[in-house]
Amino acid sequence: MDKNNMTLLTDFYEITMSGGYFETGLADEVAYFDLFFRRVPDGGGFAVMAGLEQVIEYLSGLKFTEEDIAFLKGKGVFSEAFLEYLKNFKFSCDVWAVPEGTPIFPGEPIVTVRGPLQQAQYIETMLLLLVNHQSLIATKANRIVRAAQGRPVMEFGTRRAHGVSAAELGARAAYIGGCIGTACTTAERDMGIAALGTMAHSWVQVFPTEYEAFQAYAKLYPNNCTLLVDTYSVLKSGVPNAIRVFKEMKPPKMGIRIDSGDVAYLTKKSREMLDDAGLQDCKIVVSNSLDEWLIRDILQQGAFIDSFGVGERLITAASDPVLGGVYKMAGVEKDGAVIPKMKISENVEKITNPGYKKVYRLYDKDNGRMFADVITLADEEAPSGDDYVIFDPSFTWKRKKLSNFVAKELQVRIFDKGRLVYENPDADKIRAYCAEQIGTLWEETLRFENPQTYYIDLSQKLWELRTRLIEGYQEAEA
Amino acid sequence: MDKNNMTLLTDFYEITMSGGYFETGLADEVAYFDLFFRRVPDGGGFAVMAGLEQVIEYLSGLKFTEEDIAFLKGKGVFSEAFLEYLKNFKFSCDVWAVPEGTPIFPGEPIVTVRGPLQQAQYIETMLLLLVNHQSLIATKANRIVRAAQGRPVMEFGTRRAHGVSAAELGARAAYIGGCIGTACTTAERDMGIAALGTMAHSWVQVFPTEYEAFQAYAKLYPNNCTLLVDTYSVLKSGVPNAIRVFKEMKPPKMGIRIDSGDVAYLTKKSREMLDDAGLQDCKIVVSNSLDEWLIRDILQQGAFIDSFGVGERLITAASDPVLGGVYKMAGVEKDGAVIPKMKISENVEKITNPGYKKVYRLYDKDNGRMFADVITLADEEAPSGDDYVIFDPSFTWKRKKLSNFVAKELQVRIFDKGRLVYENPDADKIRAYCAEQIGTLWEETLRFENPQTYYIDLSQKLWELRTRLIEGYQEAEA
Repeated sequence: MDKNNMTLLTDFYEITMSGGYFETGLADEVAYFDLFFRRVPDGGGFAVMAGLEQVIEYLSGLKFTEEDIAFLKGKGVFSEAFLEYLKNFKFSCDVWAVPEGTPIFPGEPIVTVRGPLQQAQYIETMLLLLVNHQSLIATKANRIVRAAQGRPVMEFGTRRAHGVSAAELGARAAYIGGCIGTACTTAERDMGIAALGTMAHSWVQVFPTEYEAFQAYAKLYPNNCTLLVDTYSVLKSGVPNAIRVFKEMKPPKMGIRIDSGDVAYLTKKSREMLDDAGLQDCKIVVSNSLDEWLIRDILQQGAFIDSFGVGERLITAASDPVLGGVYKMAGVEKDGAVIPKMKISENVEKITNPGYKKVYRLYDKDNGRMFADVITLADEEAPSGDDYVIFDPSFTWKRKKLSNFVAKELQVRIFDKGRLVYENPDADKIRAYCAEQIGTLWEETLRFENPQTYYIDLSQKLWELRTRLIEGYQEAEA
Repeated sequence: MDKNNMTLLTDFYEITMSGGYFETGLADEVAYFDLFFRRVPDGGGFAVMAGLEQVIEYLSGLKFTEEDIAFLKGKGVFSEAFLEYLKNFKFSCDVWAVPEGTPIFPGEPIVTVRGPLQQAQYIETMLLLLVNHQSLIATKANRIVRAAQGRPVMEFGTRRAHGVSAAELGARAAYIGGCIGTACTTAERDMGIAALGTMAHSWVQVFPTEYEAFQAYAKLYPNNCTLLVDTYSVLKSGVPNAIRVFKEMKPPKMGIRIDSGDVAYLTKKSREMLDDAGLQDCKIVVSNSLDEWLIRDILQQGAFIDSFGVGERLITAASDPVLGGVYKMAGVEKDGAVIPKMKISENVEKITNPGYKKVYRLYDKDNGRMFADVITLADEEAPSGDDYVIFDPSFTWKRKKLSNFVAKELQVRIFDKGRLVYENPDADKIRAYCAEQIGTLWEETLRFENPQTYYIDLSQKLWELRTRLIEGYQEAEA
């Protein structure tokens, strides 16, 4: 995370709106906003929440400096009174969020903010940026990790990341999603995520021979001696030279890495050669423009691979590089009551859920599997009992009576009137929690293609409110 | 650009290799590295160079701090002598690079580094990260800007960027590629790139009626009064309310923005309604998940659009989010002479060009168009004369005799033995230079699909060297 002041890192319209709320006397009205996304990238069955740690850092550091104020003044469209108001800005919102590592689904509030309209609006851009980015990468990493079927996956994409924070926080998100480490050294220095890596082709090129290059490396780094064998020819030169060095020097931890060519064929042949040389302990690492589909394919073709290094297609989520989280107003308070708000929109799928809401995840009491999320109004009781009815908000005849479940509230309180009240777990804990929670999903939801759609249902009361508001709008229009 | 110390932001293998070069006495041998890419994203005809400014900042700030050394020591694999060597690290390489905004092509060296092996190797990761990212976005932005056929394009993707630096430097790259501004406020504060934007749906939602929301905005910001008209219904409510406010309040600068729905249809209808109301001056802005193909299509469908706001698909280069730049060793110096090095590889397209090289761009003397780039060995004379022969390095029978051209060296000197000797132009100048240079490309190279392949040829001497090295390797292997 960039440690500089990020307060002005925002869409300019947040500032014009802030100015407008101030001038019209609305700035300190209490408003509710929900952050949610509409579509899982790559057609997957779920996404993985990440980025909350950086949201907390950002919100904790919000402050308009003298320089910021001077800059805004220079734009010539803001009043002195508004600039003075910003000078005294002190974050005082309530924030609830889904913990990092949690599987999340379209349409449900991932983050909910309640507080002075100006503040709750202003933080939109950065909340979206931070949650969209890391959730995207954690989701992608988890797909790739699952494709590897238990083989370790290392995040190797720093050089293809979209800038410095994409590299560092992308490494963090990939770790949360299940990678075992990263190439990015600052991710270890600053976040404790193991940084890994041994050599590039240039190491091999700079020595008179490949054999000498391998020999020199084995001498220096016997405890992590993964030799890159494709600078000249994997089977004719790389593997034979590696075998020679391994047999001569017996490094405690041996491996070869293949970064080009037909990986299925080359790993099978390499495995044979290594085994024939008595080097059953030598691992084979592969790292050539991989993603979940390629990994699945080469494993199906019988490739012999112990671990994967995955670069550009993970760190950019290349096949679908956008998690389209949005941040929408859900209500304002008037005399202590919540006046629900919603966006109608020309596109049906862009209609929002109104009001101050809660999300519950229902787990089967018998097997611990999650089987539905239910969005309710905040003042409703938690789902319980033996005949709790849920129904699909788009296809309301699809009803289901539930029993024998435990309902768990999905969001936790992060800020209480601007005061941080949540301690974010470290990356190791989040990673373990993520793996455990994904373990409670049904196989059918885990499919890469055409997964079973997980139920995200509305409570009867929320559904009625939504219907009433749409009808009310239609009548007003008619 | 993150102002923190970026020295350890590198793939861990750069450090293990650095340690290895030090321990084997190779660290201060003089080596040559080339940065180049192999494929233009989206199947386009060229890319746009960007990111050099940040490369300069990075190289100027290189320094291993006490904390960095302590961290590396903690890894337990580096000798005290090596850590001491890093403590005294002082960047002393020569660096040449193609200026930002220049059209660039596969296979040609974009950046060339000459210097102590340890240093020249070490900077690989960040050079790639910075040049790959910004060149990717500048290239994408330029495609989108060209699709808009002269209509202004605004970069609106901050919330979907892959982290903070992707937002800020993506905005910079988009500007270089031809966008007129960005939503990202710090891009203006820190880099002088105009930050733009007016309102979100929440502004409209928070007022009792859409009309009152528009009225309040027009009163406050009459000189940039672009009203978002799709919170409820564009044609039944948004445009009529905007017209009412524009006629009542006559703001000097009027616009409407449409962010959802069938843009071709809605803009045609909206234009009619605005014109019928005598509001010919009111501009129409469109901003719904656009890219170059969608913009081309809706313009072909006769949409009435004055400018575009382009978000996620620009800031992530969504359709092809990787510019795969690589950084390869090209030679080492021995007794003052360059010993050329190359990577052979299983994949033919991954074979590199050996030696210390220069790149020349040949412009037609009559019409100023660029028609070929030629890579030569550095000690060759610049291409000149009336029968200069170029030929395709893969299909050597494809030869062409050239005359009546001007040859311009493509790379300029950035660092001279570690001393910065280049002043990078500001973003405005780079943007203008980019537009001018792209203006010297043939129409056929500008096509979005199946562009004419621009000639990137090797000099006779470089081609012979390359052939000799490949043959030599094959003989050694046989």
